[in-house]
Amino acid sequence: MFQTAELGQKVTKDEFKERELELRTELLSLQQKLRKVSSFPVLIDFAGVRGAGKGTSASLLNKWMDARLIDTFGYYERSEEENERPVFWRYWRDLPSHGRMGIYLSGRYSRPMLEYVYGNINQEQFYQRLKRIIRFEKLLADDGALIQKFWMHISREVQEVRLRKLEKDPLRSWRMSDKDWKHWELYDRFIDATEQVIAQTNTGHAPWQIIEGEDHYYRSLRVGEVMRDALVRHLKTIKIRRKYQKELSQQLDDQEPSNGSTRQLTIMDGLDMSKHLAKGEYKGLLKKAQGRLGALHQQAVQNKKSCVLVFEGPDAAGKGGSIRHITEPLDARFFKVHQFSAPTDEELAHHYLWRFWRCIPRSGRLTIFDRSWYGRVLVERVEGFADNNEWRRAYAEINDFEEQLIENNIVLLKFWIHISAEEQLARFEARQKIPHKQWKLTEEDWRNRDKWDDYAKATHDMIQHTSKKDSPWILVENNNKHYGRIKVLNAVCDALENAIDNQPETVS
Amino acid sequence: MFQTAELGQKVTKDEFKERELELRTELLSLQQKLRKVSSFPVLIDFAGVRGAGKGTSASLLNKWMDARLIDTFGYYERSEEENERPVFWRYWRDLPSHGRMGIYLSGRYSRPMLEYVYGNINQEQFYQRLKRIIRFEKLLADDGALIQKFWMHISREVQEVRLRKLEKDPLRSWRMSDKDWKHWELYDRFIDATEQVIAQTNTGHAPWQIIEGEDHYYRSLRVGEVMRDALVRHLKTIKIRRKYQKELSQQLDDQEPSNGSTRQLTIMDGLDMSKHLAKGEYKGLLKKAQGRLGALHQQAVQNKKSCVLVFEGPDAAGKGGSIRHITEPLDARFFKVHQFSAPTDEELAHHYLWRFWRCIPRSGRLTIFDRSWYGRVLVERVEGFADNNEWRRAYAEINDFEEQLIENNIVLLKFWIHISAEEQLARFEARQKIPHKQWKLTEEDWRNRDKWDDYAKATHDMIQHTSKKDSPWILVENNNKHYGRIKVLNAVCDALENAIDNQPETVS
Repeated sequence: MFQTAELGQKVTKDEFKERELELRTELLSLQQKLRKVSSFPVLIDFAGVRGAGKGTSASLLNKWMDARLIDTFGYYERSEEENERPVFWRYWRDLPSHGRMGIYLSGRYSRPMLEYVYGNINQEQFYQRLKRIIRFEKLLADDGALIQKFWMHISREVQEVRLRKLEKDPLRSWRMSDKDWKHWELYDRFIDATEQVIAQTNTGHAPWQIIEGEDHYYRSLRVGEVMRDALVRHLKTIKIRRKYQKELSQQLDDQEPSNGSTRQLTIMDGLDMSKHLAKGEYKGLLKKAQGRLGALHQQAVQNKKSCVLVFEGPDAAGKGGSIRHITEPLDARFFKVHQFSAPTDEELAHHYLWRFWRCIPRSGRLTIFDRSWYGRVLVERVEGFADNNEWRRAYAEINDFEEQLIENNIVLLKFWIHISAEEQLARFEARQKIPHKQWKLTEEDWRNRDKWDDYAKATHDMIQHTSKKDSPWILVENNNKHYGRIKVLNAVCDALENAIDNQPETVS
Repeated sequence: MFQTAELGQKVTKDEFKERELELRTELLSLQQKLRKVSSFPVLIDFAGVRGAGKGTSASLLNKWMDARLIDTFGYYERSEEENERPVFWRYWRDLPSHGRMGIYLSGRYSRPMLEYVYGNINQEQFYQRLKRIIRFEKLLADDGALIQKFWMHISREVQEVRLRKLEKDPLRSWRMSDKDWKHWELYDRFIDATEQVIAQTNTGHAPWQIIEGEDHYYRSLRVGEVMRDALVRHLKTIKIRRKYQKELSQQLDDQEPSNGSTRQLTIMDGLDMSKHLAKGEYKGLLKKAQGRLGALHQQAVQNKKSCVLVFEGPDAAGKGGSIRHITEPLDARFFKVHQFSAPTDEELAHHYLWRFWRCIPRSGRLTIFDRSWYGRVLVERVEGFADNNEWRRAYAEINDFEEQLIENNIVLLKFWIHISAEEQLARFEARQKIPHKQWKLTEEDWRNRDKWDDYAKATHDMIQHTSKKDSPWILVENNNKHYGRIKVLNAVCDALENAIDNQPETVS
């Protein structure tokens, strides 16, 4: 694989100067076009052998283009903040918005490679880590992102010369560490790992380009040219792709409802909506449950155990009330409620999951999502904000996201707060009559109500695809709010208790 | 995940009769359309709980549609023939051609599930197996295939009732085995495994549909309706998709050659093409090498060690001669040479890798490919038979294919038989002059020669992306055929010897 990057490719200084001028002009104009179109982000990754020009190439791209439209990230050891969150949290945080570029040095590939070369993880674990990267890249590419990955290569011999030179240079020797020689000794193992990385992750939508890094002029021009060609190609294809997606989505929506389908029950049809609690009993249970929750939350904070609660349900189902009764007994420093409605401009300029990744808490926090990423397969599906293919692939994307939360030992519970259509009507009418509740009822609520059956179908599909043993949907019969609140509180307490009791011992 | 399929969905017999008639008509007409368009195959998978109606659903689809256009496959233990080949060989063999349908019972998902539930493989190995399936499905879907997977579900309680009934029925009790009750006892573990399978492999291009299997009428109609909707959707989208791919490919080809690119060396530029062997020396080395190869091949046959040799190179480079000198000393029962040129109609109606999978030998054989799957990234790329995205994603597809050969303990060597452009010209001219060699030179050879640089670039990229430690490209300087032949022979001998010496002990 790497013989092709040990050919001694060279460019003279004069040739470089001449070509550089042309290339800069081309790149700048492409960058302007990117900003103008502003419909996708660009991710540029530099990985490779120490001394092969990762850093200088990143600097050059910044110099050649308008650096204000580029964010450059170098990754080192994970910070305390990062350590308390899923591994990919920092890569989500550092995603460029549409029209911008992100340059990544020692990014997502770095740690799995190191751990594999050091022998901390075995082959299968290594592949598992790569799987996560593959999914991350696929999800971004499906959303339109341009991803270009550079592997900067020099031979073992060239690297040795580089390191010796660096060591002797009084002005630059501080950049050397023992690790550099250690890695040089492990050169062959790194190459072996790299070969696997490239073979596994060299996809059409996120390709690797191996660059011979020995000659500064050659490698710089190649990096610039590959980026230029990738930008030209992507700007052209994204236009066609978007056009095609629109046409496709239209065709699928036009598809006349099939001649007939068997009437199907939804999982909500199986709920006993008459369940209720008398006020007296409720008060006693509430006091007990809230007391229990308060104590458990204290313990969770001490044990650094995080908890994420998701609330979805029809309008007026009582999500807000359920949430309030959870937060009442909690220490305000250690919980947070995020409420989601239509996305902001900034959020729209990112992948739909981006705004939720931002809310992933540090350890020991309880975080409540009042509506959530499930909007993708509920409101966005029903209202057509996400096209047919977008919401269909969202199930896998969401499962992957939640898998990462669970791997990070976060307790994840998802509540579907349900009411019957009749009960909703009664609550709407009540809101209309009570002056201080009128603001809670909007035209949109009535419009959504007209689509009750569509929402029911979407909810049923959502539960089928995303309810799993370790992150179940809990269906809450909430025609009677007393009954519902107690069910939610007890479910949260049980899950927290179970998680605290079964927490893996950590060496501190 | 499965609560949504335990709702007691039911359809009356009368309703079934009425709906069935409509549905059959729809399905038949869609099947005719599929055959007329004839641009993609349909794969239908049935998996699920014993007794939930996998077999009867498959039969119904055959009954409802024209069974001559459907191939139905049920898989049991692997046969001896299958055991000697990579796991996916049988699934490749059983792929329907464009315009046809394949129905699969207990197919590719069955074995990984069983082995995981029985505890023969761990979680990570399980995921590795699923990865292979995911890639298989992606590769077919990328090529246009419609893939629909059904998970037929019944609850543990319903299954128990079913099994008891079956046991007591004198006419059907032969269908019961001890395994059925054993699996029933493992019900929860199967469900746990299934949940993982569905979460990991439920993709937009190969979705799972969970069907409640308790009521025969309901589940039959649902299966038929889902297939109908999938066919309608796919027939519509494939048209748009093909149009888009054409437009895209055209745009990318039109893309004016970038203002300029740094002149790049190819890996062939680094070869010392003056290498040669004098005739006398050659004869001695040839005799020795052929003797060695004959003996090693005998051993390989006995040890059931297979070997796959791939030959690629420019026209007139001497691939044929190299191959003849390998086969000379071999026992004709245990080797085979496959020569590939333009695909046949039948081959064109399948995925491009299909015709190569068919040639994968049983254990202990030596198989030579005179031109190969690499045509995808060489001639098909240069001549535009494969569009830009097709050949770009082919590297990953090919690596995945070869990974499966290597996992199956096949020795895989890939030879690039190289000559310089000058030498090619000399050989062409010689062929023109010698009457009995004129047939070997065609107009196409001259046309290919005009594209020498394009082919060189494609070859360089191919080697960069597909040469790996365990399946390297061996570049053969063949301006002097003596030198080249000995290099090839020795490489084959070394690889065989190494493989035989290091063969893992098998318990027999």
